[in-house]
Amino acid sequence: MPGVDEGIFFPVKKLREWSEQVFRKAGVPHDDSILLADSLITANLRGVDTHGITRMLPVYINRIKNGVMNPETKLTVLRERLSTALIDCSNGPGQIGSDYAMNMAIEKASKTGTAFVATTHSNHFGAGAYWAMKALEHGMIGFAATNAPAVFAPTGGKKAMLGTNPFAVAIPAGNEMPFVLDLATTVVARGRVMLHKKQNIPLQPGWAFDESGRPTTDPVEAVKGLLAPIGGYKGYGIALAIDIMSGVMTGSNYGSHFPGFPDINMEEPSDIGGIFCAVSIDSFMDLSEFTERMDTALREIKNCPLAEGNERIYIPGEIEMGTYEKRIHEGIPLPEVVVGEFENIGEEMGVPF
Amino acid sequence: MPGVDEGIFFPVKKLREWSEQVFRKAGVPHDDSILLADSLITANLRGVDTHGITRMLPVYINRIKNGVMNPETKLTVLRERLSTALIDCSNGPGQIGSDYAMNMAIEKASKTGTAFVATTHSNHFGAGAYWAMKALEHGMIGFAATNAPAVFAPTGGKKAMLGTNPFAVAIPAGNEMPFVLDLATTVVARGRVMLHKKQNIPLQPGWAFDESGRPTTDPVEAVKGLLAPIGGYKGYGIALAIDIMSGVMTGSNYGSHFPGFPDINMEEPSDIGGIFCAVSIDSFMDLSEFTERMDTALREIKNCPLAEGNERIYIPGEIEMGTYEKRIHEGIPLPEVVVGEFENIGEEMGVPF
Repeated sequence: MPGVDEGIFFPVKKLREWSEQVFRKAGVPHDDSILLADSLITANLRGVDTHGITRMLPVYINRIKNGVMNPETKLTVLRERLSTALIDCSNGPGQIGSDYAMNMAIEKASKTGTAFVATTHSNHFGAGAYWAMKALEHGMIGFAATNAPAVFAPTGGKKAMLGTNPFAVAIPAGNEMPFVLDLATTVVARGRVMLHKKQNIPLQPGWAFDESGRPTTDPVEAVKGLLAPIGGYKGYGIALAIDIMSGVMTGSNYGSHFPGFPDINMEEPSDIGGIFCAVSIDSFMDLSEFTERMDTALREIKNCPLAEGNERIYIPGEIEMGTYEKRIHEGIPLPEVVVGEFENIGEEMGVPF
Repeated sequence: MPGVDEGIFFPVKKLREWSEQVFRKAGVPHDDSILLADSLITANLRGVDTHGITRMLPVYINRIKNGVMNPETKLTVLRERLSTALIDCSNGPGQIGSDYAMNMAIEKASKTGTAFVATTHSNHFGAGAYWAMKALEHGMIGFAATNAPAVFAPTGGKKAMLGTNPFAVAIPAGNEMPFVLDLATTVVARGRVMLHKKQNIPLQPGWAFDESGRPTTDPVEAVKGLLAPIGGYKGYGIALAIDIMSGVMTGSNYGSHFPGFPDINMEEPSDIGGIFCAVSIDSFMDLSEFTERMDTALREIKNCPLAEGNERIYIPGEIEMGTYEKRIHEGIPLPEVVVGEFENIGEEMGVPF
């Protein structure tokens, strides 16, 4: 989902400090509050406002207040082998367990070449790219995925049984920017359909289904209906594989068992699972040789002859990196309605925005 | 790509034996000929005739005859760690290195929990599912991927720089059939577009681009142009990630560097790379508990209320498993033109079809 470039710009430092303080007031321990704020602020900096404080800070605070997410996280290693582990996250914010799991994957991969660490009984973990990218500075490929409440049906069905189940892959380069792919397994996000409905613009074919499971371009029908997975049955398969590994295999929720969206359901814990992998590149090729080959490969892609109406080719992650460079100096834009929401939260929590 | 259900049916045993003999006559060692034939016959049995003897046996024989693929395979472990390895396949048939790599991944995963083994200087490896499925009987999740000659452009471009770069994931179940996903990162295969051209039927929107990189539903324009990746820039990103891991990281060809399609180019080795992963389920959950949860999860999906015009929901791999059960008894259908081709090959090699 594209970033929200309209709104009032706030300095990054101010937003970061305020977010940390709000989380601490809600009972999140000091170090965890820094991590939580950094995960969300980084999403905002990369233009992924749907996963930034813009949308998620009020949700997290609300969940803590309603007692369906714990502010303090007790991490327990349930199973561990040389290259794998399963971490119980005791219903704390998803970022805490994810950070531990990804660090563990990196440490294990530095010893054995690769590692696969999973989390259970966790929550929304922010943007997947944040975790996959942690591998980059270690000369590793990072991978992160999570399951999520259902928004689409298996191919041929009309009941939502699969989440957007996003996954992210980060691969280092040399002088070129790293490759950072972060995607949901649906063609478009729900937010995009909502926007079309608001503006009364028909959807593109292939984006959504109505309540009966028929393809529709009517945004009103689509909002009542289902999103479409990428590549039809292919996206259904990818989402199901992620759900099985994140949910079924970890003992977390899966499929249609989630109690609802984290911003709406305030009755039960989300009980989300996640998977985190690291692959040490020097297990296959000296890192310096690899990053040189990567630079060449990425430049070749960027020099691809352009299709009509296009000005340039982007490597996955390049647009987000560009937004980061811009926003780190110019600040993060917040829509007026969000500023109002933050003022209310600030007043309530005794941390004026 | 759908199976070819029209044609003359041949008993599996006959096709298997003949294929083995033809490969041996071409210089493939005894054990390797059995593996090669099994990989292709299994694809036919699963209805994936594009990766069966139907299409690939003549291609392999032709490549060996033209000296661009070695009949004998010398495997060399170039790098090895506890959970990783890189295997040089000395331009032998892709199946030989893939079998070694997948077995090695399974063996390593049984000791450390997970493993990631890559192949380099290899060839077409048949269907990815064949390798991923090897993990199933070990209570593991299997993953296999490969890069391939370019058929589509990065988003915004008009020159083919990315292959279909397929990947397969296999996950065991209990009483239910296992989950077996095997997909190319393009919306449809090139063969499907060719078929539409032949029958003069317009393509569905989103399948292909013309030579200028504009979306087209005209099959004539599409054949001259490019395939479309699943989910637009998402499929481009997935294909590029697979290309980087299979090609850039292993020292094999990648992107636009392939000398052409294996059935057309007879000048140079394909120099394809592949990646093979195994994840031992009992590193996360007792296998019996997992397979029970899997059975429940898969049944829930299959019981999803149906969208209009649908008769049932399929789990990924279920259609192929159904075709397998049918063809193992009824035999494998070969189109007349293929029968003629096999008769010619048989005559030439002294192994009458």
